[in-house]
Amino acid sequence: MNEAAAAVSLLRGASAAAAEVFKSILTRGPITRIDIARLTGLSQAAVTKAVAPLIGAGLVSDQLESQRDGQPGRPANPVMVVPDALVFVGIKVNADEIVGVATDLTTSILASDRRPLRSTNLDIVVDAIEATGTTLVDLLGVRAERICAVGVTVSGDVDAHSGIVRESAIMGWTDVPLGKILTGRLDRDVLVENDVRALTIGEHWFGVGVGTASFAIVTIGRGIGSGIHVNGAVVEGAYGVAGEIGHLPLTSPDRICPCGRRGCVEAVAGTPAIVAEVSRGHGKDLSIDEVLDLAHRGDPIAVRTFEQAATVIGTAIATLVNLAGPELVIIGGEAVSDFDLFEEHLRAAYAEHAFGAASRCRIVTRPHTFEDWARGAAASAIRRLAENRI
Amino acid sequence: MNEAAAAVSLLRGASAAAAEVFKSILTRGPITRIDIARLTGLSQAAVTKAVAPLIGAGLVSDQLESQRDGQPGRPANPVMVVPDALVFVGIKVNADEIVGVATDLTTSILASDRRPLRSTNLDIVVDAIEATGTTLVDLLGVRAERICAVGVTVSGDVDAHSGIVRESAIMGWTDVPLGKILTGRLDRDVLVENDVRALTIGEHWFGVGVGTASFAIVTIGRGIGSGIHVNGAVVEGAYGVAGEIGHLPLTSPDRICPCGRRGCVEAVAGTPAIVAEVSRGHGKDLSIDEVLDLAHRGDPIAVRTFEQAATVIGTAIATLVNLAGPELVIIGGEAVSDFDLFEEHLRAAYAEHAFGAASRCRIVTRPHTFEDWARGAAASAIRRLAENRI
Repeated sequence: MNEAAAAVSLLRGASAAAAEVFKSILTRGPITRIDIARLTGLSQAAVTKAVAPLIGAGLVSDQLESQRDGQPGRPANPVMVVPDALVFVGIKVNADEIVGVATDLTTSILASDRRPLRSTNLDIVVDAIEATGTTLVDLLGVRAERICAVGVTVSGDVDAHSGIVRESAIMGWTDVPLGKILTGRLDRDVLVENDVRALTIGEHWFGVGVGTASFAIVTIGRGIGSGIHVNGAVVEGAYGVAGEIGHLPLTSPDRICPCGRRGCVEAVAGTPAIVAEVSRGHGKDLSIDEVLDLAHRGDPIAVRTFEQAATVIGTAIATLVNLAGPELVIIGGEAVSDFDLFEEHLRAAYAEHAFGAASRCRIVTRPHTFEDWARGAAASAIRRLAENRI
Repeated sequence: MNEAAAAVSLLRGASAAAAEVFKSILTRGPITRIDIARLTGLSQAAVTKAVAPLIGAGLVSDQLESQRDGQPGRPANPVMVVPDALVFVGIKVNADEIVGVATDLTTSILASDRRPLRSTNLDIVVDAIEATGTTLVDLLGVRAERICAVGVTVSGDVDAHSGIVRESAIMGWTDVPLGKILTGRLDRDVLVENDVRALTIGEHWFGVGVGTASFAIVTIGRGIGSGIHVNGAVVEGAYGVAGEIGHLPLTSPDRICPCGRRGCVEAVAGTPAIVAEVSRGHGKDLSIDEVLDLAHRGDPIAVRTFEQAATVIGTAIATLVNLAGPELVIIGGEAVSDFDLFEEHLRAAYAEHAFGAASRCRIVTRPHTFEDWARGAAASAIRRLAENRI
């Protein structure tokens, strides 16, 4: 058993208290044992006892650069993870592309690979994921030995426990046992997760969410999704579905969503709906780039269509905020690069419908690159290991 | 210092681990120390150490009726709270009535009092709360010495941390420092909480929510509200507001809500909106009883109005479920007694808009009496003490 495998098996066998200690070090480190005790409610003795085997396995260090000459092992000495100890692979499946990264324990990228998809046919997608995995292994060289898990994310209704993609409108998939198929093909531990939930996990553990008591990520673009983080964790849904802001019934019933339901947010505010509406107005098929160009040049049909989409998104965010009351909403997704077309009407609709003090929730944008989505996939694999889940 | 005061100060000074142990005993007892360790992730030694002072203070017992002859103090012996150790007062403020109860540590009712309110004027309400408090003290007799906190609940945007009712449409209040006023008048520790959130806390700690990983309570009637329990706790809202299902913008903008916003659920589905709509249809002012009677007798205007209200409520529940993904939704509130008028269209709208596997969430009804609401108020005061919050 190599060092990484030994570390993985230590984490898998950890008690709930030891897992809490590792999680604190991973997400809050460098951190002193005293602060870990404060954060977890454990005694200092219990923390010290939990930290020792983590140091022994090379997962954690108390030999920080700044204290190399000090006395290790003292409670006031901060400890931190050894990022290189383990390697994770994160893969984001889009309808037209596979984006893969290999990261360390803190989701810093060690290697990356992107490859186009000819179609969303399952065999083609699985082949492409395998090819991306092989490329990442080649790029990693000897460090590939430390790969301990693969996270794969897909838009839609994904059951992370069983690894089944139950419904993905964008991929055209229903009840696809992706986890099982990929575990066989990659010969690794594979976790399948909803893409936006994974992005939220990544932000919570390693991004803007660290130290924020509650937040939501709303992604706009081809699909409209959200991840909600309250009461210390991302909302998973009792049946694996939550945060489906794109499928809130906030628009007219004559707008049919790609999911088949009526009046969904995505049926007006998703990029395909916007392109279709502007194309209809101009009596010809336009591309998304042409539609964006028209809107930026002030074409009334395009401008009005973006305004309608923005109003629906703002109303949906107010709906989320009135129910979940987060501290912060982060808008991401590919359409954020054209946020100027949305901002005014989105904020106006939000202000109109946010209730009472919930409206103090700030709305910020953050451009997530495709690699950030893949890092989210890696983050969910890291979390599963650290929390001993599933 | 009497015994109850000593117990309260023990709980206030408890470490996070000791508070977790007490909470496990309170909500899951009778429970063995071994199971507490399993539940909290603490070592058995830490649990035993935390239990001892709780027994010493008379809050917890390991001398169950069934094991009086056994050997106390053994890890396999279950422990449970001594319900009588402390007494709490819970008061629900309605627009036309004050409902108060005194309960033990498990929200069993020891005494109760109801009195009508002539108006929602603050002085009148505070006087009535004080009179209810005095009556409960009289009814309790010597047990009144053990009262350690008062929970008061009001509909609307309530900041439990500051005790300020920021906005309550039903009471016509804005920024009322109710906590401060009542602390002075009752000379007790007073917690002010949103009424539906308190009901949810009560169900989570002492009701249907025990052992349920996630659930939501949706109340229908004069106001439409909800409390959402996910990730181990009721969603509080970063700014004190959450679960405002009555103010989701799911209806036509020409419907104006009592809160002043357009298109809120309550503007169509709240009892006053239903009564106004049927009255308008019949060209005369009708009472709620007359409206219910018309609907039960099949009057087309009344039937259609209830159907519209039911559709909006079902759509709102689907919205909550798509975002929060609970295991179970419990419909309560005074309108549950006429659920037959709502059920068909409510369930149809829910089924139409619930997304993917989230739709597996079951919808059940539970008639909460007014005293249940007051018990919820007591439960929030119990929780604050047990969790050392605010």
